Amino acid sequence: MSTTGNGAGTRKLEVIGTAAETTLGATRKKVDASPPVSKLGPVEADLPASRRVYLEEDELRVPVREIQVTGGQPPVRVYDTMGPQGHDVQKGLPRLRKPWVEARLARGDRNFSQMHYARKGEITPEMRFAALRENVSAELVRDEVARGRAIIPANRNHEELEPMIIGRKFLVKINANIGNSAVSSSIQEEVDKLQWAIRWGADTVMDLSTGANIHETREWILRNAPVPIGTVPIYQALEKVKGKAEDLNIDLFLETLIEQAEQGVDYFTIHAGVLLRYVPLTAKRITGIVSRGGSIMARWCLAHHKENFLYTHFEDICEVMKKYDVSFSLGDGLRPGCIADANDEAQFGELRTLGELTQVAWKHDVQVMIEGPGHVPMHKIKENMDQQLALCHEAPFYTLGPLVTDIAPGYDHITSGIGAAMIGAFGTSMLCYVTPKEHLGLPNRDDVKTGVITYKIAAHAADLAKGHPGAQERDDALSRARFAFRWNDQFNLSLDPVTARAFHDETLPAEAAKSAHFCSMCGPSFCSMRITQDVRDYAAAKGIGEDEALAAGLQEKAAEFRGVGSALYVPEDPA
Amino acid sequence: MSTTGNGAGTRKLEVIGTAAETTLGATRKKVDASPPVSKLGPVEADLPASRRVYLEEDELRVPVREIQVTGGQPPVRVYDTMGPQGHDVQKGLPRLRKPWVEARLARGDRNFSQMHYARKGEITPEMRFAALRENVSAELVRDEVARGRAIIPANRNHEELEPMIIGRKFLVKINANIGNSAVSSSIQEEVDKLQWAIRWGADTVMDLSTGANIHETREWILRNAPVPIGTVPIYQALEKVKGKAEDLNIDLFLETLIEQAEQGVDYFTIHAGVLLRYVPLTAKRITGIVSRGGSIMARWCLAHHKENFLYTHFEDICEVMKKYDVSFSLGDGLRPGCIADANDEAQFGELRTLGELTQVAWKHDVQVMIEGPGHVPMHKIKENMDQQLALCHEAPFYTLGPLVTDIAPGYDHITSGIGAAMIGAFGTSMLCYVTPKEHLGLPNRDDVKTGVITYKIAAHAADLAKGHPGAQERDDALSRARFAFRWNDQFNLSLDPVTARAFHDETLPAEAAKSAHFCSMCGPSFCSMRITQDVRDYAAAKGIGEDEALAAGLQEKAAEFRGVGSALYVPEDPA
Repeated sequence: MSTTGNGAGTRKLEVIGTAAETTLGATRKKVDASPPVSKLGPVEADLPASRRVYLEEDELRVPVREIQVTGGQPPVRVYDTMGPQGHDVQKGLPRLRKPWVEARLARGDRNFSQMHYARKGEITPEMRFAALRENVSAELVRDEVARGRAIIPANRNHEELEPMIIGRKFLVKINANIGNSAVSSSIQEEVDKLQWAIRWGADTVMDLSTGANIHETREWILRNAPVPIGTVPIYQALEKVKGKAEDLNIDLFLETLIEQAEQGVDYFTIHAGVLLRYVPLTAKRITGIVSRGGSIMARWCLAHHKENFLYTHFEDICEVMKKYDVSFSLGDGLRPGCIADANDEAQFGELRTLGELTQVAWKHDVQVMIEGPGHVPMHKIKENMDQQLALCHEAPFYTLGPLVTDIAPGYDHITSGIGAAMIGAFGTSMLCYVTPKEHLGLPNRDDVKTGVITYKIAAHAADLAKGHPGAQERDDALSRARFAFRWNDQFNLSLDPVTARAFHDETLPAEAAKSAHFCSMCGPSFCSMRITQDVRDYAAAKGIGEDEALAAGLQEKAAEFRGVGSALYVPEDPA
Repeated sequence: MSTTGNGAGTRKLEVIGTAAETTLGATRKKVDASPPVSKLGPVEADLPASRRVYLEEDELRVPVREIQVTGGQPPVRVYDTMGPQGHDVQKGLPRLRKPWVEARLARGDRNFSQMHYARKGEITPEMRFAALRENVSAELVRDEVARGRAIIPANRNHEELEPMIIGRKFLVKINANIGNSAVSSSIQEEVDKLQWAIRWGADTVMDLSTGANIHETREWILRNAPVPIGTVPIYQALEKVKGKAEDLNIDLFLETLIEQAEQGVDYFTIHAGVLLRYVPLTAKRITGIVSRGGSIMARWCLAHHKENFLYTHFEDICEVMKKYDVSFSLGDGLRPGCIADANDEAQFGELRTLGELTQVAWKHDVQVMIEGPGHVPMHKIKENMDQQLALCHEAPFYTLGPLVTDIAPGYDHITSGIGAAMIGAFGTSMLCYVTPKEHLGLPNRDDVKTGVITYKIAAHAADLAKGHPGAQERDDALSRARFAFRWNDQFNLSLDPVTARAFHDETLPAEAAKSAHFCSMCGPSFCSMRITQDVRDYAAAKGIGEDEALAAGLQEKAAEFRGVGSALYVPEDPA
């Protein structure tokens, strides 16, 4: 019932890949026979007038996307998640972090966590990289990571990563979930999904693949991922015990964690807060337990009548996490699955436990974020944020939506986008996207795009509400383009230029209309934008608020208007 | 640049209808040769398992839509805006209000405003009808109307109307805009647009038609409208002066008001708050004046260097309004057109003036609502609501969105749906929809549906947040259906059953899957919903919180699970 469940769903539908299928190991051994061919169009087609440029500082080259604007306006630079383009997916991305990691290995570090370095007062290249992307100081980044108020998910074995930061003093981030295909996949197919999600702005991607070729799929994704990759290890652990939750145990789980950590997974969703005593609290709910990981652990607890082994062995898990710098995404296994179940005893009980576990993780300098709901009516959203900050000691909050009503399946990207924008403005650091297929089926390519764009809207709206420095520049640039009828600029500055242009062209296809000083809404002979220009010209000439000048000016203007025959539309000179 | 402009935009693109075209007068004279054929599918196809039933009280029969639910669950009744179906559009709808209006005429009333009756302590049938729809007392309705905190838009010449109430103590309403076609229209074509919007839940419809057959188009719409119809009379007045704003004058405007009031228009958008002194305040804006009506009046003020004649002759306008009981929708001609211009001096200056005009209208017992923005970042939305309540003496607020960011043209139903849900929760009474084509082009049929559904989501989310009695019943019924895998119930209870079903069928087309105890998200062999049932069964048997029972029960449960081979999915008995 969750987006997590959504992605995971491919499992039961998939045709297991053959053994002949590629196994791209950490050694990057190339064994795929078929030449990779991407089904994605070129970036330029989706994001015209854009180019990847770099902010340089010492050895660092930090990517931003620069959107060219006409009309003598400066280009607009926006945060870029796409990563390097045009590489051979079988070789993977350039290993940006290789030298940084090797230096740490050379000096014999044992705890590779960014929090560990931050607390020692060390500003890492990852911190400087993230700081440049956010246009803030590296010291702010270090301080927030040291306090646990922000995380930099960066497994030391994910050397292809372009480091980024998740915390409420920074830009609100969004996560997109992908899973392996219902049919056996090729490298290119899996990487295409990743590329598609980050092309539209996903800041992190969770790989919820399941089934036989799960290890290889994850390898392909990691070697080609410029963004942090998250997983839910319990899914693979469950595969290993053939779907019998009660056969799970801590050794099997740790083995799975190490396997994934070795590959370079940056954060793990771990449902260590689903305690035995909380399980019966879900009985009175309308939709009970809707988290897949949560119900697996609940089933284990009931079957053994023992406490959740993820909770009882939490420190063993921390040992793995710090060795690779994998961040915790402490799962909300008891999150509400409908409006009626929001903010109940089970949910907040688990949240309290996640707060305790956060302090245990921090004892090991392991980075932590906290997962949140789910389904919450608008008037109960702020309480979620307030409780999370209080109970989890300001660790970053990572929420799924929340959906603010249950009556619109097919439109849950919207019902959840409303809640996401609000909780983002209240302080949530990352928003897990929801697609239109939520609760109904498996998202296709269009659904993934719609989900990502909707969540970029929610995250950006939250950035504006939080007054993030520079966030409004893009809004203003687009609004100026709109006012000046620079249609192509308006399209290019938007989150989805292709769709904006297509909608415009449905009514006014002619290329000439792209520069026409009117739009289809009011037509050429009248335009509300035109008079504003007249008002502006007048005010600029006379100065505003100078009453005499105003009076005189209005007289003048009045005469002038009558002079030109009082046409409501005064065309500009051809010049 | 506004939705208003949007609808109006058809004007310049349209081919004027021929003289041969129908003229369905107030006399309902049938002159259309071609037999009307609706292009809409039957309601049952769009809203399956639903039927129109009536709440009866004395002579009143108040429609509600009853959705049948399986699994032994009671049917769910929802507010119904569709009106009577299957009538001859050339004859129009049954005249529900005829006897009520005739009684008032018989006793020689001069002021037909619902506010006038409310203040005299008279509870009209319109008030009782609206009260039954809202499941509140008629006295509450009368009192709110008397205080001016709510309005019942109900022109005495719109006898086909099913009365409804707009106010913040009642369900949040939504408005959809329609305009005449780019090609010459038939009765059926125009009525289809109306029917399409109200089928999906539009509570009121604004007819923004322009051009030659504007009078006839309005007539067709009114005679077939069970919902209040609003217009922007200045558009037709501008037609009469061939688009020259400065040739407008109060006599021409009053003549236009009377023409439209005679036809039965229920509310007029009138931009009487655009004062000469406010116009220069827009000069420093990024997008200046974006309201079409606002810029027409600004142009008039500049051209004559005189005060807005709608302001100086406001009491003359009130005389017309009360004679027919047309409600004011005081237009926000200076609303912001982008994030940067939100909550500025021009906007709040005009709002203050609208507050003064509200008191003038109330002096005449004329009903008033206040139009609001537009484009507002989330952190500035509440100030809009607070200022409106304070400056406009709690008259109902009627807002367009607001859009919470400018960077997503093509998705402005979403950027505005976020703001609409929030301002609705803060107390806005009616939300004017925005379609995906906003700022780009003319909405087609799909865009209208998407806009209406998105705004139903926003309005319903606000009803939940305000704790409107019974609002959550539909959410709970749908969530129960979801939990019990009653897929068809889940579809039928949703805002858009067709889309929900189609999305589900993309992954699991088989009809059998509609009753399957799993969904495509987790597959048949594991389902997070199943374990909840086990937890529930246990808890129901043992009672929650009784620790011994709990301990015992868990032991028992543990044994039982191991007994059945610990399959995670325990199928139900065929029974």
